[in-house]
Amino acid sequence: MNKMPAADLSAFQAELVAIAKATNDTLDALLPLAPGPEGRVLEAMRYSALDGGKRLRPFLACASADLFGVPRARSLRAAAAVEMVHCYSLIHDDLPAMDDDDLRRGRPTVHKKYDEATAILAGDALLTEAFAVLADPATHPDGEIRAKLVAELARASGAAGMVGGQMIDLMAATLTLDDAGLKRLQNLKTGCIIAVACRMGAVLAGAPAATVDLLGNYGMDMGLAFQIADDVLDVESTAAETGKATGKDAAAGKATFVSRLGLEGAKKLAHQLAEQANNQLNSFGNKAVLLQQAAMFAVTRRN
Amino acid sequence: MNKMPAADLSAFQAELVAIAKATNDTLDALLPLAPGPEGRVLEAMRYSALDGGKRLRPFLACASADLFGVPRARSLRAAAAVEMVHCYSLIHDDLPAMDDDDLRRGRPTVHKKYDEATAILAGDALLTEAFAVLADPATHPDGEIRAKLVAELARASGAAGMVGGQMIDLMAATLTLDDAGLKRLQNLKTGCIIAVACRMGAVLAGAPAATVDLLGNYGMDMGLAFQIADDVLDVESTAAETGKATGKDAAAGKATFVSRLGLEGAKKLAHQLAEQANNQLNSFGNKAVLLQQAAMFAVTRRN
Repeated sequence: MNKMPAADLSAFQAELVAIAKATNDTLDALLPLAPGPEGRVLEAMRYSALDGGKRLRPFLACASADLFGVPRARSLRAAAAVEMVHCYSLIHDDLPAMDDDDLRRGRPTVHKKYDEATAILAGDALLTEAFAVLADPATHPDGEIRAKLVAELARASGAAGMVGGQMIDLMAATLTLDDAGLKRLQNLKTGCIIAVACRMGAVLAGAPAATVDLLGNYGMDMGLAFQIADDVLDVESTAAETGKATGKDAAAGKATFVSRLGLEGAKKLAHQLAEQANNQLNSFGNKAVLLQQAAMFAVTRRN
Repeated sequence: MNKMPAADLSAFQAELVAIAKATNDTLDALLPLAPGPEGRVLEAMRYSALDGGKRLRPFLACASADLFGVPRARSLRAAAAVEMVHCYSLIHDDLPAMDDDDLRRGRPTVHKKYDEATAILAGDALLTEAFAVLADPATHPDGEIRAKLVAELARASGAAGMVGGQMIDLMAATLTLDDAGLKRLQNLKTGCIIAVACRMGAVLAGAPAATVDLLGNYGMDMGLAFQIADDVLDVESTAAETGKATGKDAAAGKATFVSRLGLEGAKKLAHQLAEQANNQLNSFGNKAVLLQQAAMFAVTRRN
């Protein structure tokens, strides 16, 4: 993905690091260790949730909320909730019955570090806690907005969103997915959660539905660009660079954007989508520069 | 449990059947089948959620809401949400990595009927959908109340509630639980969800916190009575009567109320708890008769 004209993404990079740090602090406070034997599940939740990672979804939630001047004390809670859902999905995805992965970001996956039962429960509890965080008055004083945040995150995460995408993905080796089918799989599996992070920033501000949708469309396009870039990296990189197994989808006989479009075709589509994402933000003018840099980052990153 | 003086529970029995039917209809409408490959996860969700069962938790949510004249159109949605959480917990509990059960209510468990991955996802999606249902304006026009319902259900289901109880239960064979430890395990694992069903009825009515707590205390006591009665039935009944494997906890070396207190001691405690539960409802007078019959049912049932 290194053929892009070099763009200055330094403002985005700095903010991504700052929000990642603040998200870690927020998650650390929201997931205190518990005494008693049930403390094991909280240990596993913390092992997963405080694991670092880019924290792209928290960045998107906070940067979207910043467009409307939403206080960080609120947007960071929404960001933490989205990240909890992301972490739960990774824990369950890594299970032997699902993708059966032993490594995640270079560390043992939760079921390898603990055990399968603990991993299932830790995922369940992170998903549950995400909704507890959103429903708490500390996230927003207006109950209508809190209920809306819950509805948004639930829709994006459930059978009509992320879980539906994971179901399709599990069957993907036996399905013949065309380009549209592959795009739909990725939109459900990863796009919905990236889009909802953006949407929640606008919901926190009480923005009108059309504005929420605008940010959601940005997120869906940049999420797909991010995923296509992942497929490209999967082919061009080594496990040492990405911190996870590479070439796995292709080996499993699953269609990828690279297998469907070729390396150059996939790169071109990713850049088109990043541009399309950024065009959604034109009405925000210069205020949206960090989000626009984020879309460029999605398609120019090395890992 | 047949040494009780015969009480007339016919009003409760009739209402339990009526609410079970209405809950089924509500769940059927809330979980429509989807086209496309992701439809498989909805099939599995429906297989679990439309499976019948006593629907004790929906009964408790509706009967509690009835104390305050809450319309059934609202309480049935809260009831359906609690039942979705109950069903998700059964699906995940039955997994090979957890209790490894092949049968549930005389039918193959979800991972036997489908596969492990589908069962994990179906549980995840039922949990998610529960919060979507509560956050939907159709459940209550007031967002504050919807957000409160979400917060209540999340707290009861998460690491400080049901999931925490399941974590302890998984470690129970290696723990030395005294009476208090066993009671705490059961309160977390099953009591919290029974209690929250009762609490949600009061929350739907906008009842003050003290009243919500009163119904929660009733639910926690009757839930523990129900669980102790389960232990007694586990010893006194056959698998044919209860529709599930019997004597399993004892065989796994886990403490039960019968192993700790003896058969007669366990029966006595169950009846004391049912009485204590019902005393919580004195201030409601005759209006609470169905809930009081429910507590008597919990300790006199045959399955």
